[in-house]
Amino acid sequence: MAKDIYHDIVREAIEKDGWIITNDPYRLAVLGRDAQIDLGAEKMMIAADKGVERIAIEIKSFINPSFTYDFHLALGQYLNYILLLEEQDAERELYLAVSQEVYDTNFHHLAVEKAIQRYNLKIVVFDSENQTITSWIK
Amino acid sequence: MAKDIYHDIVREAIEKDGWIITNDPYRLAVLGRDAQIDLGAEKMMIAADKGVERIAIEIKSFINPSFTYDFHLALGQYLNYILLLEEQDAERELYLAVSQEVYDTNFHHLAVEKAIQRYNLKIVVFDSENQTITSWIK
Repeated sequence: MAKDIYHDIVREAIEKDGWIITNDPYRLAVLGRDAQIDLGAEKMMIAADKGVERIAIEIKSFINPSFTYDFHLALGQYLNYILLLEEQDAERELYLAVSQEVYDTNFHHLAVEKAIQRYNLKIVVFDSENQTITSWIK
Repeated sequence: MAKDIYHDIVREAIEKDGWIITNDPYRLAVLGRDAQIDLGAEKMMIAADKGVERIAIEIKSFINPSFTYDFHLALGQYLNYILLLEEQDAERELYLAVSQEVYDTNFHHLAVEKAIQRYNLKIVVFDSENQTITSWIK
């Protein structure tokens, strides 16, 4: 699948946030499936005994005129990838990356908040102009 | 959104299976969202004290060349609708309707089986040629 329009922006923002990009893309090959999550990254935890934190990031631009359609797709993709990730690297956390504009416009909707809470979606919000991470929501 | 190509076939099959179609489509209007599930139906339970069983059915033809894409979308849609249904009519069960061909070809895949089990998807399989229900999977 084509790279998301925000791919390089998010990659840059994640690096600025102190992460090392280890996979671009991050490949999943378990349960007879081949799939790709946009980025894999690692960070050494400040508390040294906590070791290295690993994440995978799926970037969603939500460019479809119907946010609802894009959100169905993003939710299903996230929840399918979580199952693959459990098999391949259960400690690696999956994040959905969304721009600040999309987050502000659509993610405070009751139905979206309920889905995020119920299905434990982790979200990383980025500022596309400044190429920075504005919040990690988990 | 346009009616699914199997809409009338599933409607007919559900009726043959002893259900009364009560809604076509079944409208959801809760949490500030308006959404439509393809069909709503009811059936009197044989054990009279069990009353009336209510279901909603979302029909998926899986016509996209990528089954994986369509399955992401179907899973996300199902899980978002479940949350709306909980608010509107918590006793009504949601089913995903898929043709026997699609079920046989794609739904025995490990990754799909794992998703169905983990996220408690209920599925009704139909024979598109004979317009009958072949199985209810829950």
